[in-house]
Amino acid sequence: MAQAPKANAIIGQSGGPTGVINASLVGVIEEARKHPEIQTLYGSVHAVAGMVKEEFVDLGKISADTLEIVAASPSSALGSSRDKPDAEYCKKILDVFKKRNIRYFFYIGGNDSANTAYIINKMAVEAGYDMRAFHVPKTVDNDLLVTDHCPGFGTAGRFVSCALMGDDLDNRALAGVKIDVIMGRHAGFLTAASALGRQRDDDGPHLVYLPERPVSMDKFLSDVEGVYKKLGRCVIAVSEGMADVDHKTWAEKLVENAERDAHGNVQLSGTGALADFLAGQIKSKLKVKRVRADTFGYLQRSFAGLQSEVDVDEARRCGREAVKYSMTDISGSVAMKRTGNGKNYGVELFRTELANVAEKTKSMPDEYINAEGNDITDAFIEYALPLVGKLPKTEYLGNYPKV
Amino acid sequence: MAQAPKANAIIGQSGGPTGVINASLVGVIEEARKHPEIQTLYGSVHAVAGMVKEEFVDLGKISADTLEIVAASPSSALGSSRDKPDAEYCKKILDVFKKRNIRYFFYIGGNDSANTAYIINKMAVEAGYDMRAFHVPKTVDNDLLVTDHCPGFGTAGRFVSCALMGDDLDNRALAGVKIDVIMGRHAGFLTAASALGRQRDDDGPHLVYLPERPVSMDKFLSDVEGVYKKLGRCVIAVSEGMADVDHKTWAEKLVENAERDAHGNVQLSGTGALADFLAGQIKSKLKVKRVRADTFGYLQRSFAGLQSEVDVDEARRCGREAVKYSMTDISGSVAMKRTGNGKNYGVELFRTELANVAEKTKSMPDEYINAEGNDITDAFIEYALPLVGKLPKTEYLGNYPKV
Repeated sequence: MAQAPKANAIIGQSGGPTGVINASLVGVIEEARKHPEIQTLYGSVHAVAGMVKEEFVDLGKISADTLEIVAASPSSALGSSRDKPDAEYCKKILDVFKKRNIRYFFYIGGNDSANTAYIINKMAVEAGYDMRAFHVPKTVDNDLLVTDHCPGFGTAGRFVSCALMGDDLDNRALAGVKIDVIMGRHAGFLTAASALGRQRDDDGPHLVYLPERPVSMDKFLSDVEGVYKKLGRCVIAVSEGMADVDHKTWAEKLVENAERDAHGNVQLSGTGALADFLAGQIKSKLKVKRVRADTFGYLQRSFAGLQSEVDVDEARRCGREAVKYSMTDISGSVAMKRTGNGKNYGVELFRTELANVAEKTKSMPDEYINAEGNDITDAFIEYALPLVGKLPKTEYLGNYPKV
Repeated sequence: MAQAPKANAIIGQSGGPTGVINASLVGVIEEARKHPEIQTLYGSVHAVAGMVKEEFVDLGKISADTLEIVAASPSSALGSSRDKPDAEYCKKILDVFKKRNIRYFFYIGGNDSANTAYIINKMAVEAGYDMRAFHVPKTVDNDLLVTDHCPGFGTAGRFVSCALMGDDLDNRALAGVKIDVIMGRHAGFLTAASALGRQRDDDGPHLVYLPERPVSMDKFLSDVEGVYKKLGRCVIAVSEGMADVDHKTWAEKLVENAERDAHGNVQLSGTGALADFLAGQIKSKLKVKRVRADTFGYLQRSFAGLQSEVDVDEARRCGREAVKYSMTDISGSVAMKRTGNGKNYGVELFRTELANVAEKTKSMPDEYINAEGNDITDAFIEYALPLVGKLPKTEYLGNYPKV
């Protein structure tokens, strides 16, 4: 392995923000300061878009106190971008890197970001430019390959768990049907996290619909009717990516003029259309009077003051580890392996090839979804509960014995 | 003043749940235990609906540890009701009270609940039934008369502040126009709380629309355009009760088949229609490409693990105080008077007549709204900031000097 070059470094944050992507950023910054090989550490403002425009801030001058505030702040402190760089775009980036003697490239993001790091790394190798490219995982969707789970999921999952705990108690107080539409285009992990706070036998969400299990409107309505008849109320968690049996998503069928981002993804968030449509179906077909629907939207990924402790710690470690790997390896993505569960929960970090993560996504394993396709299993709870951190206990008195 | 009778007591929680209505419940329970005049303390399940059906739980047997969990739980632990009792309904309740020797009636809720307590108290007086009726204030809308502010507002305001802090950082990361629709039919306090977390000069929300200031769609669009041209982005907080210059709410104009609850209020929550409509207007008329809209819905009133410390403390004190007043007075509503501001913030509690609170609502005072009617003033911040508690500091690096 060639010696790590004495040169400048750059870091960017890409894609949708999360509650701990800044913790990963701080992990990179604090570790970079320990390595004399890394000279100036540039922060690229708005990810790859800032790289071509050389919109850089100097991350070497930020105080330790400020770094702690950064690590606790939601969203991407350097700004983000949805640009998906092609070869020409990447060449421009590489030109800037050469001009600025940038030979360390750290990129925090999802599978598209891993791909960007992969392309730039390949170009650098071909051009004989001695450079290191590392991807730090981030996504609320938890859909990256190789790693046990992704930084960002635990915090978003904590938001969703706490939201459903509150919402279920709200639904007990004023009974009816409540629908909550949760982020997740293809992977149901975040929607599944809605069930992590269940404490009593009849706690909601009573039904959980995931993109991995297409469901017809008839089946959906019949499920809701069953719960409502039994409990007199029903709380439903629905992924925004919920699909019909023909595998078209409900949202795609509904949203006219759906926007597509540069990655070809249909824009599903930021609209109440799916939630309102499902509420309308239940009102009209099941004759339930009180039906309410909320779409969690961006609150679940950027909410000040709400982080999972485990998640923020792991995100920071992932950032630090990327810098360490860059001292001995040319490229890679940071991944986590679980070393224990429950009280013994822990992870160890390892390096995987960028190609293993780039442009690929993971779905919920079958063992995490019940046979009927409308709830999660205990295996999922065992998997996900350590990631969201200790959830508050709640109490409901209305089901105490009557006197 | 007649001696406090030795008799049973009852408590109910009415209307929309809040994050601290259970703290008021616990305040009543713990104080009632100190007074031998109060024998069995019944909890009525689903408020007045439980009273006519005698759906009661015994609140004397709940452990202190469980009470702490109750006080920290969102929503109404006894269940709630939207019933608005008429004279016949109230007579049924009074019959149950007589049968069970209930002579202390505590009711936690908004102005409708104060009115219920007022009617029942009046009936009891007319019937010569020695009984005490006390109202404990609760509402996320903060719209009760007499009291400086209402338990429930601080916690909901904290949710909204933290949401907008995160959302504004999200909007910095991926620029565009973001609309957040916030609860509040007639009073803009909760929507105004969206601005409490602003830390930097260009922090959002950049525009705040309140039901107290009707605005035309043209003015709205021109405001948005102005901010967007200046900052390249715009975060907007809109009350669900936002009205046009003809004083009809935008939502009323939009929502077909709007439901009305038993109090004659139009059902505005639980629908993304207003947010989606405003987003559509901005997209089509201002030609802004990236426009997103979220409707906060029930998350802002029932979210597990999120309470304002000041709010939860005051809510509990209000519950305790109601019991104390019932030892010396026939009826009343608990109210708060502010004794200091900023670092010297504090309140003292006092009793006011039920009639002063019943069926009345308060709007945002003019001094809390800017001249243009699209933002709040420093006076509002001074008023509301102590109520939501200390907000997290955040950091954004993208506006640091470029290198």
